[in-house]
Amino acid sequence: MPEAVLSDSVGLVTPQTLHFTDPLPLACGQALDEYQLVVETYGELNADASNGVLICHALSGNHHAAGYHTENDPKPGWWDTCIGPGKPIDTRRFFVVCLNNLGGCHGSTGPLSINPATGKAYGPDFPVMTVKDWVNSQARLADRLGIEQWAAVIGGSLGGMQALQWTLTYPQRVRHAAVIASTPRLSAQNIAFNEVARRAITSDPAFHEGRYGEHNTLPRHGLMLARMVGHITYLSDASMGEKFGRELRDQAFKFGYDVEFQVESYLRYQGERFSETFDANTYLLMTRALDYFDPAYETNNNLAKALEKAEAEFLVLSFSSDWRFSPARSRELVDALVAARRKVSYAEIDAPWGHDAFLIPTERYSRTMGAYLDRVAREVGV
Amino acid sequence: MPEAVLSDSVGLVTPQTLHFTDPLPLACGQALDEYQLVVETYGELNADASNGVLICHALSGNHHAAGYHTENDPKPGWWDTCIGPGKPIDTRRFFVVCLNNLGGCHGSTGPLSINPATGKAYGPDFPVMTVKDWVNSQARLADRLGIEQWAAVIGGSLGGMQALQWTLTYPQRVRHAAVIASTPRLSAQNIAFNEVARRAITSDPAFHEGRYGEHNTLPRHGLMLARMVGHITYLSDASMGEKFGRELRDQAFKFGYDVEFQVESYLRYQGERFSETFDANTYLLMTRALDYFDPAYETNNNLAKALEKAEAEFLVLSFSSDWRFSPARSRELVDALVAARRKVSYAEIDAPWGHDAFLIPTERYSRTMGAYLDRVAREVGV
Repeated sequence: MPEAVLSDSVGLVTPQTLHFTDPLPLACGQALDEYQLVVETYGELNADASNGVLICHALSGNHHAAGYHTENDPKPGWWDTCIGPGKPIDTRRFFVVCLNNLGGCHGSTGPLSINPATGKAYGPDFPVMTVKDWVNSQARLADRLGIEQWAAVIGGSLGGMQALQWTLTYPQRVRHAAVIASTPRLSAQNIAFNEVARRAITSDPAFHEGRYGEHNTLPRHGLMLARMVGHITYLSDASMGEKFGRELRDQAFKFGYDVEFQVESYLRYQGERFSETFDANTYLLMTRALDYFDPAYETNNNLAKALEKAEAEFLVLSFSSDWRFSPARSRELVDALVAARRKVSYAEIDAPWGHDAFLIPTERYSRTMGAYLDRVAREVGV
Repeated sequence: MPEAVLSDSVGLVTPQTLHFTDPLPLACGQALDEYQLVVETYGELNADASNGVLICHALSGNHHAAGYHTENDPKPGWWDTCIGPGKPIDTRRFFVVCLNNLGGCHGSTGPLSINPATGKAYGPDFPVMTVKDWVNSQARLADRLGIEQWAAVIGGSLGGMQALQWTLTYPQRVRHAAVIASTPRLSAQNIAFNEVARRAITSDPAFHEGRYGEHNTLPRHGLMLARMVGHITYLSDASMGEKFGRELRDQAFKFGYDVEFQVESYLRYQGERFSETFDANTYLLMTRALDYFDPAYETNNNLAKALEKAEAEFLVLSFSSDWRFSPARSRELVDALVAARRKVSYAEIDAPWGHDAFLIPTERYSRTMGAYLDRVAREVGV
């Protein structure tokens, strides 16, 4: 925890584990009879509990959005650039809550947890989760924290889908929703990339139909491939070109199939590191939640119709070089919100880093988020 | 061979196998002491051998570019829409030659061939090939056919790289080069996708370091994944959306990780079919040839400088929705040709099918190719 960043950091944070024993019915037809959620909070809840901000994480994210876990922690939480005292999501004004979603692999109940019905880890028997299920579990969390209405629900990518779903499932419990680098539903190409990732995992012989835990193996190769293909879609062609170009790892071509170019080395490293820290069943589950999300499914593909029930105000942000969830996908959402006569602010931020841009602070991005949330803070009197 | 298409088809064709016994030195430092090329030809070579057109194939292509192999052949060659009597590459005027490249798996010497040094299949010991090596082997083929100068060398994608390389290695042996849906070199993103494909193959336990033949196995899963990820990059987001959208295979969600969406089913089918007919070592080799191609490598990244030695005239074509080798990559080549004071015609064709558009006839595409090649034909007096 470098001294220099302490002034605008939430500092040392400790995750809490909350247990829930009311059965949670799920979209798939099953239910979780009991479960736990791992949560971090930053800032203080005000007296009328009006300053709560929920942060929803994306595919590989977790509850650790800001601050440091130990004095020597080399890295802060995944959105530390955005959350902290004086930052766009200002912890001097807001009570910020972030959780690991159900089905995750960072402490909340998921495939690695013990299934009370069998006494063994759920593994592949953990039920398929949807964005709706997560939002329902997050509503239980809000109840537990004494938050009747969130000042804002905020998320990027898959997190943005949760923010959007909140406004539809619990219209009166969200004042504002910030849907960042997201989409109202995946395209066929998006689903196709997810399918490649899933096939990579399930066709790894070490996967054992998801029971790799019982076999004392890990489908590392499959998970590595899944992450490699995912990673390419998080970056832009231009940013990869800027970062690596055609630079060779060694002086000259070796004329073989091992690493020649720096970009190959980088991708393998990213894939290998990920495969050592992430759970394969969780990866399948997260990609499926992305695929399934489609608020217009029940309104005959009429997104505006689906959005009519929302009461929140919306901030929608997209990034110019994001080709995974391009600005056009955000504009679809904005157009539908406008057609549904909802209040929406939209900005397309110029940034070269592709989908990952939502994690990288730039002046206009920070200023837009900050200005919007300043208004939210004033509304709720903080 | 449907009757209706006979009028503009080259009809029944029979591949020929040509043997070469002059050692072919390769970029990797090795040499092929002897090799064979499988070749198809359409049309007649004229008296002064000036009407030869060489067609170069792309990653998964082969020598069978046009016509039918049997009376009941359900499918013609891969570029039958473009090659035939009255078609843009008009076989009433040109003598059209297409070969399976060295390292391929359709009859020319490659990893599946017997290595004379060992009496066993080359497998992974087959040398890494480059676009330059292919062009050198194609020059031997031209010698054998009695063609001193090609009227045109034409190729799409990896085939376009060969057409371009011809103008640099043998400037006086090419009158015209048509470089279609191609690029003067891969970007970091392009290499990254190839790397995912290679990792998918080499991390399949059935790959056995490329010696799957000796183990009586096939790395089907790896090759399937490689093809799936490749296939996504050949199509556009829009064309996948048009073709599949979010259509489900069954009536409702099944909440699992097996096929839910039609696009998943399609991709798996394509991947599985490919994995049964293509050789994994050849796939590695073809992707590496793509990675290595970079005519500006020897001129300190100055492409215009590299192109100064070309004497051919160029036709460069790109397709609006191609994001694998986007129009911007073709314009790089055109700009460098202009800077090098070469003659070049360029058209960006509006087409929704992504990279695959170079295989699909549209009016402007066919008209542009046809008009250009009509001029070529007149130049050589046919």
